[in-house]
Amino acid sequence: MNAAINKDTQLCMSLAGRPGNFGTRFHNFLYNELNLNFIYKAFTTNDLQATIGGIRSMGIRGCAISMPYKEACIPFIDEMDESATAIQSVNTIVNDQGRLKAYNTDYIAVSQLLNQHNVRRDSVFALRGSGGMAKAVLCALHDAGFGSGFVVARNEVAGRALAQAYGYEWTDDLGRIRPELLVNVTPVGMAGGLEADDLSFEPDFIEKAETVFDVVALPAETPLIRHARLKSKKVITGAEVFAIQALEQFILYTGVRPTDEQFKRAAAYARG
Amino acid sequence: MNAAINKDTQLCMSLAGRPGNFGTRFHNFLYNELNLNFIYKAFTTNDLQATIGGIRSMGIRGCAISMPYKEACIPFIDEMDESATAIQSVNTIVNDQGRLKAYNTDYIAVSQLLNQHNVRRDSVFALRGSGGMAKAVLCALHDAGFGSGFVVARNEVAGRALAQAYGYEWTDDLGRIRPELLVNVTPVGMAGGLEADDLSFEPDFIEKAETVFDVVALPAETPLIRHARLKSKKVITGAEVFAIQALEQFILYTGVRPTDEQFKRAAAYARG
Repeated sequence: MNAAINKDTQLCMSLAGRPGNFGTRFHNFLYNELNLNFIYKAFTTNDLQATIGGIRSMGIRGCAISMPYKEACIPFIDEMDESATAIQSVNTIVNDQGRLKAYNTDYIAVSQLLNQHNVRRDSVFALRGSGGMAKAVLCALHDAGFGSGFVVARNEVAGRALAQAYGYEWTDDLGRIRPELLVNVTPVGMAGGLEADDLSFEPDFIEKAETVFDVVALPAETPLIRHARLKSKKVITGAEVFAIQALEQFILYTGVRPTDEQFKRAAAYARG
Repeated sequence: MNAAINKDTQLCMSLAGRPGNFGTRFHNFLYNELNLNFIYKAFTTNDLQATIGGIRSMGIRGCAISMPYKEACIPFIDEMDESATAIQSVNTIVNDQGRLKAYNTDYIAVSQLLNQHNVRRDSVFALRGSGGMAKAVLCALHDAGFGSGFVVARNEVAGRALAQAYGYEWTDDLGRIRPELLVNVTPVGMAGGLEADDLSFEPDFIEKAETVFDVVALPAETPLIRHARLKSKKVITGAEVFAIQALEQFILYTGVRPTDEQFKRAAAYARG
């Protein structure tokens, strides 16, 4: 209970344009479970630089960074981990006695999942999207050794630039390729969005693919994931990405690694 | 439990050179008791301006200000309540949507206690001390209508300046007056201090006084208070000041006034 907060309690937090509850529930669940003297709270800000100055000066231990601050925060950081340097995008700040180091645990989580699910490195992939998260996923694919792939973005300029940055190609015509790995990094299928009921890849492409990876985390089972399961495809879900990136944040902040069982319960609780 | 923290939870905090547990326990106890979606945590800072910028930009609802920041924070405040203006010392900041208003609830608490204990306004008082809290108490005595009193400070320059600011006199010789109200605003009698076992006024003066007011809050029963009780004097304790100033902060932050019974239980819990 919060009456147990004392002067030695450490605060971790998140910064987002529209704060959600997942991180708050995930981290506080594990603090309780592991009996750690931490609390976690979500914030938004009307002045990013001032808030990061507050984090540094107050000794707030860690801060998750969400949209729209992932790139904007970089000038105020003291040191960039390679996970953040590679994509110039930050989703985690760790405060070591006033020195702020930035990480990108989305990148770390995607890399881990590509390993865990044994996705063949010689798969040709098609990745839809061109935003910050698309960059993290594409960079993870590149660093994991995927040699051949395409960025499928409505915005040709952004799509081409993103693809070329990692040695891939842009296309607006999936018909001419035959992707074995489909990756959705657009909001299509996201709960509450305009395209909540839509598939980001047409059924025909799903049919021909081996693995379907949807970065959309809410709902846990997007239309794309549901359809892919129906077709007995290997799936990787955004819910997995979201939980693993939070787990990596937890480990960075506390130095403690929960058991798999604790992690799964925390993720289930956080989604609830 | 902190697992109940969600995205709508409001944070209140304190800033002190050496954070204690009283405020944290007091506020969190009442949040639980009254089922308010708040948490309270103590902080220190290595950059006061940056921290106040963080409070403003993150929407932290309220902040208690302790030594050594009570005067240093004034340049970073947007508006001063008259309780803080009168003594140019702040112990409370309230954040209304990015606008920071400063109060001094020590002043408010002392004023309330002089009323509650029906201290005669024509009492001649002797006040020991010359620091920031001495200023708050002297100003409260002045504003409550005490016409005649003396500041008894080892530091003559500071003592004279303080006394004259509120129309009183400085003395180093209590023998020539006969104070009816003794007020200690020095660390004499404070637990853990160099003079923890000492009386800030000699027994002879206590004997002749009607009321003894010790601003030292720890222990709740200082040697001065114990001695005065023994002599059947009316007493006002620092523990009362400390609890009431925290209560006034609580009301400013939440807009909710606990019952007397809830307040008493919170204060007892916070001391424990």
